[in-house]
Amino acid sequence: MYMPAQETSSRVPKYIAIRDAIAHEIESGQWSTNTKLASERVLMEQFATTRVAVREALLALEMDGLIYRLDRRGWFVRAPRIIYRPQSTKSFNQYVTEQGGVPSTELISAELVQATAWDATHLKVNVGDDIYSMWRRRSINGRPAVVEHLRINASLFPQFLEQNLEDSITILMAEHYQRQLTRAHISLYPTVLSEQQAKALHVNVGSMGLYICRTNCDQNGVITDVDQEYWLHDVLDLHFEASE
Amino acid sequence: MYMPAQETSSRVPKYIAIRDAIAHEIESGQWSTNTKLASERVLMEQFATTRVAVREALLALEMDGLIYRLDRRGWFVRAPRIIYRPQSTKSFNQYVTEQGGVPSTELISAELVQATAWDATHLKVNVGDDIYSMWRRRSINGRPAVVEHLRINASLFPQFLEQNLEDSITILMAEHYQRQLTRAHISLYPTVLSEQQAKALHVNVGSMGLYICRTNCDQNGVITDVDQEYWLHDVLDLHFEASE
Repeated sequence: MYMPAQETSSRVPKYIAIRDAIAHEIESGQWSTNTKLASERVLMEQFATTRVAVREALLALEMDGLIYRLDRRGWFVRAPRIIYRPQSTKSFNQYVTEQGGVPSTELISAELVQATAWDATHLKVNVGDDIYSMWRRRSINGRPAVVEHLRINASLFPQFLEQNLEDSITILMAEHYQRQLTRAHISLYPTVLSEQQAKALHVNVGSMGLYICRTNCDQNGVITDVDQEYWLHDVLDLHFEASE
Repeated sequence: MYMPAQETSSRVPKYIAIRDAIAHEIESGQWSTNTKLASERVLMEQFATTRVAVREALLALEMDGLIYRLDRRGWFVRAPRIIYRPQSTKSFNQYVTEQGGVPSTELISAELVQATAWDATHLKVNVGDDIYSMWRRRSINGRPAVVEHLRINASLFPQFLEQNLEDSITILMAEHYQRQLTRAHISLYPTVLSEQQAKALHVNVGSMGLYICRTNCDQNGVITDVDQEYWLHDVLDLHFEASE
């Protein structure tokens, strides 16, 4: 597999040039969502190349989430993933709406419970302290996108369960409790969805998901809540700006 | 599925309490990697609960990447994922070594090519300008973990292909070319690995991966390179600190 390095002005592998050309057209907005790509035969002619190179290019584009395949019907431009900036304090409703999607939220359950060892470590409270435990499902354009489990330090938010918990919690905490959230710490990784999460998201058990755990603080650095999110794997494109 | 919110001091669902207790023991380092968990029967007795609750707790722990199952042999503590901080400029060799792993890198190919439209947009060069295109495979403890495709602005790095390209590129750029990299922008999402990437990583075609695209700048904000990484899905735990 190793190829010795050569300082030669060789050509780009054909399939990468095709991939790049089509990616550029999609990313620059020349083709709208669900547009059908030219057939493989037409692409072969257009790029004066082989079917193998065209196939490799299309598979690379599929892998990058730019196109999808419908059996016997060809290749189509995918709806762009929702850009999610975990460092931002924008609410789900805000960033989905800004990107042309229709967000919705269902409360699955909300209750006052006693902090377990895990809760105590993550919320910096004592085992047995009161916390709120909430599950919600959030959808984009009617398609379930994420199930989330929030654990909230109850001592900071009296009468919390009497609020409308299908609205933005960030906005509720800011406007009703004068706690302006900042994201203290984020951990994330791809993971297999458990049965419970898969069912809530209407996908097969064993489907891939993206796990995001956020710890939020208020303006004084007090930990307000820990939010575990289980996303479908193909919904988000996460963006970070690294400020050094 | 909707359960009305109740301000009651109800108990934590049993399986969550078990999950949390075991997660706490693993995360606080009480059990080392590959330790076998107590049997389901013993856990049932220990937590005074049903087999169903124990099973749910174990599946939740598997989903969180804390334990794995060997058929007929039971459940074991997983080697922790490698913590990767994309905002950091630490090299792969550095952060893997710091976490007790043994990193290695193989150069697959490296060549001078002309920038395509995609390259030009991402590297802020002109179409047709010289860039280096490099593929490398990086392993942890001998297991392939990531295949990466680097595209580097060739005008900034003369004689680049004559360097040892299996070493850290970050360190090479800093020490040999006086360009101190910072991470300008990171985009990431779970994705299906293409045939090429899957083969290089020794997994089945169609396996899940994690795509990370990083744009690097030097100390003056000049874009030096764009790095597309295709990771196995279960290698990394990504950590971000959100500084507001």
